[in-house]
Amino acid sequence: MDIEQYMQQLGRQARAASRAMAKADGATRNRALTLIAAAIVRDADLLRAANRLDLDAARANGLAPALLERLTLSDGAIATMVEGLTQIVALADPVGEISGMKFRPSGIQVGQMRVPLGVIGIIYEARPNVTIDAAGLCIKSGNATILRGGSEAIHCNRALAKLVKEGLAGAGLPEDAVQVVDSTDRAAVGALITMPQYVDVIVPRGGKSLIARLMEEATVPMIKHLDGICHVYIDALADLDKALAIAFNAKCQRYSPCNAMETLLVARPVAAQVLPKLAALYATKQVELRADAEAHALLAGYPHLAAATEEDWRTEYLAAILSVKVVAGIDEAMDHIDRYSSKHTEAIVTEDYSAAMRFLREVDSSSVMVNASTRFADGFEYGLGAEIGISNDKLHARGPVGLEGLTSLKYVVFGHGEVRN
Amino acid sequence: MDIEQYMQQLGRQARAASRAMAKADGATRNRALTLIAAAIVRDADLLRAANRLDLDAARANGLAPALLERLTLSDGAIATMVEGLTQIVALADPVGEISGMKFRPSGIQVGQMRVPLGVIGIIYEARPNVTIDAAGLCIKSGNATILRGGSEAIHCNRALAKLVKEGLAGAGLPEDAVQVVDSTDRAAVGALITMPQYVDVIVPRGGKSLIARLMEEATVPMIKHLDGICHVYIDALADLDKALAIAFNAKCQRYSPCNAMETLLVARPVAAQVLPKLAALYATKQVELRADAEAHALLAGYPHLAAATEEDWRTEYLAAILSVKVVAGIDEAMDHIDRYSSKHTEAIVTEDYSAAMRFLREVDSSSVMVNASTRFADGFEYGLGAEIGISNDKLHARGPVGLEGLTSLKYVVFGHGEVRN
Repeated sequence: MDIEQYMQQLGRQARAASRAMAKADGATRNRALTLIAAAIVRDADLLRAANRLDLDAARANGLAPALLERLTLSDGAIATMVEGLTQIVALADPVGEISGMKFRPSGIQVGQMRVPLGVIGIIYEARPNVTIDAAGLCIKSGNATILRGGSEAIHCNRALAKLVKEGLAGAGLPEDAVQVVDSTDRAAVGALITMPQYVDVIVPRGGKSLIARLMEEATVPMIKHLDGICHVYIDALADLDKALAIAFNAKCQRYSPCNAMETLLVARPVAAQVLPKLAALYATKQVELRADAEAHALLAGYPHLAAATEEDWRTEYLAAILSVKVVAGIDEAMDHIDRYSSKHTEAIVTEDYSAAMRFLREVDSSSVMVNASTRFADGFEYGLGAEIGISNDKLHARGPVGLEGLTSLKYVVFGHGEVRN
Repeated sequence: MDIEQYMQQLGRQARAASRAMAKADGATRNRALTLIAAAIVRDADLLRAANRLDLDAARANGLAPALLERLTLSDGAIATMVEGLTQIVALADPVGEISGMKFRPSGIQVGQMRVPLGVIGIIYEARPNVTIDAAGLCIKSGNATILRGGSEAIHCNRALAKLVKEGLAGAGLPEDAVQVVDSTDRAAVGALITMPQYVDVIVPRGGKSLIARLMEEATVPMIKHLDGICHVYIDALADLDKALAIAFNAKCQRYSPCNAMETLLVARPVAAQVLPKLAALYATKQVELRADAEAHALLAGYPHLAAATEEDWRTEYLAAILSVKVVAGIDEAMDHIDRYSSKHTEAIVTEDYSAAMRFLREVDSSSVMVNASTRFADGFEYGLGAEIGISNDKLHARGPVGLEGLTSLKYVVFGHGEVRN
């Protein structure tokens, strides 16, 4: 069987399994999750052995240390997977909720029911923990899923898939509800993103280049974001303590997340006061500051100072680098954001009520904040309980995507024999 | 300027206008709608004159009578356009609503704000009333729009566009918030559906062939439905009076809407009782019945009877034709629906509580009904106040799409200086 045929078969099987998943009650789906967690604990040694095969091959192929670390299934990583499943079990069942049932003049009662999307395709890097995390979220939300993890993790993913299928079967659910693509052929990805008859949505979890490539080829809709060029704007009426804490935290608490700040905008009236104080904080982390001319003058003497270029405003550093610009006020700040933001997360620091309200209303990003660090843009921090990804798109889910993002709403009508006139 | 350049220019202008529209308050958007309605009343004679140019050309080109009727801007059609705008003014403003603001353990307060999608592209047939209807919904929901109506209506649409721009300008909104494509070149459609940088969503309103063609080429997401193969299932425990009324209404109240029934499924225990009675009703409308073998035997003697083929179960007749099948019960009914439905609207007629609950939960269509005619699947009947279209997709809007379907939710965070640990 060639890879096209193989993927079609996975698709057919997933579609069939999705029907049983949509019908299954919440207790049954939770039972499967609990059984999977128990199987992982029981077979931890086998999982580590499978992972060693992956690691040996990866080392032989010269995989970068950071990627090797992500690939490693440590005791801690196994415990985190099990804990993650336990947390998903504890979440409220998103499926079948009926809301807004209102009587209409015709006599019918109309509202909406939350239902699974159907089949979710998930494409991710060589991180075995994502296999369990993604499988867990899809099972909980009543979906079937096809998982395509990075090929370096194939042995480990195969072993995990076996345990997931055991858990599904133990709960009386179809084993095909979770299928791990058992092939390292890259054509599998191309097939997965072009079979809308079998796959309802693709969630790519990975780097910008992966997602950009998928966007060109996919005919299945995606829940995705490309990059996070997030801004903090310190307004003329900002509380100085809050401004310093937020601007430092948004850049330095961690550099790699997509919700970290990449550009700081400071209102001219407070720039001379704010920037030197902030520089003292950034200096403790050797943050490189790439400043426009005005900020550059105010930061003179900072040891890691450079002139910002046009390219800097468009760059997601994901590193100890920050672009800094002095602006006249909120209008210039919002113009800059409108032009350069990736529409992920932006924050204003201000005590000015009207400025806060304008920023919230007018900034067109998936998360807009007043007086809080951009680092809060996260499914767990927002109380979604879990996160399958973050969406920069406007249709369907926007911002952090939890279980609800893996469902849709259909209309339901309670009638009493009504007909239309 | 060639058509590609022209469309790019419309796109750029729409994107710029969408920012001003998103910021405008509801009173301003309503003011524009009121001014447009007044301008239509004032210039009714000019509109009819423009429409006559279209009608003369269409008659010379031998346009079919049904299409000529749709193209005609009668006094009644003008009054309906004005009334439609007045109704849209009266609807609640969907933009800026903040919901679900909850405090999190970190101290931040998180919820969502409803915001316009941005730029909506609408592609429709030669029906001038859709120009005003679509412009009205987009203005109300704070979006910019690019309208591409059927080329036979170009004179009338040009005249309407002038009045819409007058209303926008009168309210202080950008005239480019509504742009009618002033070209009958079909390449304009191809350009409109492939510029995601300027257009956020396409709403095609038209026949199946148009939409199928767009689906192949579009890189912009669409809110669309292809066809409505809607089912009514009469259960063994149906109330006979309700069953007869609903099955007659769902087929015969109007034939052409997408929510009309195309296939009737009847439970075996009641088929011999139900089908002859229904046939007596259908006979009054000369409805052709295409029956499976079992139904055929029970309908013997009906004057417009034919044997159903496999193709019939897949056909949207939009005519006085109905396919009829006897099934063992709810499971066979749902299997048939799962196989042949276009996932638009399905109804069960039953007094059996458990059967009703199973049907609601397990049937995967955008509208699922108990004891009501499928003809109720409609934005006005559901209380949405207006309808831009019906979606058979699962992502974003599903079922009748009103003003909310032209908006999305972004996260908003009220902070007090919080940073992440």
